[in-house]
Amino acid sequence: MKQAKSANSGKFSLKSVVSISDFSRPDIEAVLLMAKKMEGTSRAKKCKLLDTINVATLFFEPSTRTRLSFETAAQNLGANLISVADGGTTSQKKGEAVSDAIRVVAGYSDIIIMRHFIEGAARRAAEVCDKPIINAGDGSNQHPTQTLLDLYTIEKEFGKIDGIKIGLLGDLKYGRTVHSLAHALSHFQNVKIYCIAPKALKMPKHIIDELRGHVWVHETEELDEHLAELDVLYATRIQKERFPDPLEYERLKNTYILDRSILEKTKPIFRIMHPLPRVNEISQDLDETSAALYFRQAANGVPVREALLFLLSKQVKK
Amino acid sequence: MKQAKSANSGKFSLKSVVSISDFSRPDIEAVLLMAKKMEGTSRAKKCKLLDTINVATLFFEPSTRTRLSFETAAQNLGANLISVADGGTTSQKKGEAVSDAIRVVAGYSDIIIMRHFIEGAARRAAEVCDKPIINAGDGSNQHPTQTLLDLYTIEKEFGKIDGIKIGLLGDLKYGRTVHSLAHALSHFQNVKIYCIAPKALKMPKHIIDELRGHVWVHETEELDEHLAELDVLYATRIQKERFPDPLEYERLKNTYILDRSILEKTKPIFRIMHPLPRVNEISQDLDETSAALYFRQAANGVPVREALLFLLSKQVKK
Amino acid sequence: MKQAKSANSGKFSLKSVVSISDFSRPDIEAVLLMAKKMEGTSRAKKCKLLDTINVATLFFEPSTRTRLSFETAAQNLGANLISVADGGTTSQKKGEAVSDAIRVVAGYSDIIIMRHFIEGAARRAAEVCDKPIINAGDGSNQHPTQTLLDLYTIEKEFGKIDGIKIGLLGDLKYGRTVHSLAHALSHFQNVKIYCIAPKALKMPKHIIDELRGHVWVHETEELDEHLAELDVLYATRIQKERFPDPLEYERLKNTYILDRSILEKTKPIFRIMHPLPRVNEISQDLDETSAALYFRQAANGVPVREALLFLLSKQVKK
Repeated sequence: MKQAKSANSGKFSLKSVVSISDFSRPDIEAVLLMAKKMEGTSRAKKCKLLDTINVATLFFEPSTRTRLSFETAAQNLGANLISVADGGTTSQKKGEAVSDAIRVVAGYSDIIIMRHFIEGAARRAAEVCDKPIINAGDGSNQHPTQTLLDLYTIEKEFGKIDGIKIGLLGDLKYGRTVHSLAHALSHFQNVKIYCIAPKALKMPKHIIDELRGHVWVHETEELDEHLAELDVLYATRIQKERFPDPLEYERLKNTYILDRSILEKTKPIFRIMHPLPRVNEISQDLDETSAALYFRQAANGVPVREALLFLLSKQVKK
Repeated sequence: MKQAKSANSGKFSLKSVVSISDFSRPDIEAVLLMAKKMEGTSRAKKCKLLDTINVATLFFEPSTRTRLSFETAAQNLGANLISVADGGTTSQKKGEAVSDAIRVVAGYSDIIIMRHFIEGAARRAAEVCDKPIINAGDGSNQHPTQTLLDLYTIEKEFGKIDGIKIGLLGDLKYGRTVHSLAHALSHFQNVKIYCIAPKALKMPKHIIDELRGHVWVHETEELDEHLAELDVLYATRIQKERFPDPLEYERLKNTYILDRSILEKTKPIFRIMHPLPRVNEISQDLDETSAALYFRQAANGVPVREALLFLLSKQVKK
Repeated sequence: MKQAKSANSGKFSLKSVVSISDFSRPDIEAVLLMAKKMEGTSRAKKCKLLDTINVATLFFEPSTRTRLSFETAAQNLGANLISVADGGTTSQKKGEAVSDAIRVVAGYSDIIIMRHFIEGAARRAAEVCDKPIINAGDGSNQHPTQTLLDLYTIEKEFGKIDGIKIGLLGDLKYGRTVHSLAHALSHFQNVKIYCIAPKALKMPKHIIDELRGHVWVHETEELDEHLAELDVLYATRIQKERFPDPLEYERLKNTYILDRSILEKTKPIFRIMHPLPRVNEISQDLDETSAALYFRQAANGVPVREALLFLLSKQVKK
């Protein structure tokens, strides 16, 4: 690990992980490289890397899976862990500001992982706190570690991200995940993005405009006609909670259900990704096929989060 | 511990712990023997046994004490721990299948301990997941580790299980605990089971029939007349939540309250067991007598769960 | 640490930490001295001090920050940790007595940290349980570790507690924190306490009477006229939940709001303490001034709780 340390220490430039838009291509590459190293390092070695570090997971908005993934990563590296799992501290209920809560917890821990329902909460925390902050989701705004694990999954499966042909499917209007992934992919070369969505859930125009300068983008409502071209199809849940109108949700939710029949049209290397949880967007009959990348994608959250914790830990003065 | 490993590795045959009915007598004995070894092993040695293992406790239905007992066992063996304490994951609330939740958590951990309110949930989890599953209770169906700690408690207190004379008291109709214990006792020799219950809460006939081929069984409503014969009286709570009719509950709940006066009729080795929590089935005036085995019984959950985790960990490929 | 152990082992006399009134001056000093040693000990050494100890945090009443502080301390010393964060065990909901819950958890752990909404719950627990209990708050009664961290903060900041001039500000009628702190200060020499409160929230007469034999006490409604004399001003939140009458709360809550303007009247060494959370008693414009001691005060909870856990662990027989 010592060589890895010095090789990367010049590249990763961030003090906190708040937004994927803060990441340069070298920042992203430093994380992906370190995640790969983490997968190749024995548990016996890994568990000493953060063994004098205290990590706090503060979930002002609950998110079990993201929390468990971070807590696994922190413990694999030997860190101590304190955790608020269930939607905030009792002090908040007494009227305390988030900035105070963060400062108090910074007195107990060296790195703070937080999820909050308010957009910008993680940015604010990073401003008031001298310890590294990792944003594990702030409302419908940012969830940068999801994007990093998506990128890592693509790189691990296809060998590289440059040149990938990826379909983004489903709710491209409200989907934080696909917005961030598309943004991050624009750092890479020769990427082709197919935005596949019903009209009512199209990718916002300002994102399309932003992407156009960097990657090839095609907008369509038709999934079938592009299946043969795709390396990856990134499916998303039509999230009920993002819809102002429940009837609109009912009308659209089953628009793009994937099942085993799609594999007749795809390349052998074709893979399906999904941030999970799925409801019925992907039929269980795909789970045992080689196209099913989504469970391995979720598991990739652990080495990616190990990498982030390790890279940020270098700034912690003990 | 090395000798222990090889001595037992041929005996314990299970990949997951789902139901006590999956256990052969050698399986049970392998667990009891390993639990005894765990009690005789120093903490300094024990904490290396699972130090490259991640354990998850997923309590879709909360059960504080069972969770704490498992979490103590996992940590005593040096395992990392991730935990959902409070009734399920946020993804479930979004409509995710239990099988998906298990597969995602299996990407973070090596052994999954789960409690779920649906009968058969643990069996389903063991089918979809390639990691060992421990059933910590599925509805009113199975809670196999309770039965194993009950057996371990009897063996530890009386030297052996063969030949034990045990009274099962209280709610024998709805009580999952006594059904499983009676079933497990049928693996042993010369066991005498006294089923002591009011008519409305009698042991179900199909269980009595099953037992009859293997053990001596006597059904009665009278506690007093059999007290002198018993080695152990296993009392149970009349569980309000299992009664369709609350009036029926009120009428029956105080039928068999144990207090110090019963000790006038019992043998010196007589012991009272109870799965806890008790409400008022056992008077506190018994707590300081030698008959009170229930708190030590609860504490025995730790070595038994250590034993199970250790035995299952041998199947984990790292 | 070995010398520290033997030097203090004769001084700290308590088996459990239930009430600050159980502490003699030598007991207090043993804790403060050990806390200082903890701050001077490397993590690599500290994490072996309790590495064969299991600690349980049982919060029958939730209190996130107190729990996190204890859990940080326990883990820094290498202890295993089991935790009930969210307001009690499932067994309580089934009707179990607190004394039973404590006895069962004592079967899993060596030291129990508990918070309970009922006054006297920790005392009762210490009576039925042969393991050390730490009271992390019992209703509006006692919260002794808060007082110890307050004393440690004063000693650390001013070099000694003897001779301190301290203002207690705000809700002196209902405030558990200031009652305990005033009591503890009465063990020290030449202490001057200014009780600054509106008439409706005055320090109770029996506490004033008790203090008068040991320390100089002055009662007043005016903050401004005493600011120049004070070393420390201990501000408290006007706690809505302690008021029988909500209108009375609205009328009084903003009586003593501190902002940067007060620093024109104070000494250079003047410091503000607060048990936190604050709502609006202390303006954020004070946070970056040298007077703001409250966040460092909160962080001092960790070494003080490390000290208590270490001192109590000596009684644990393994």
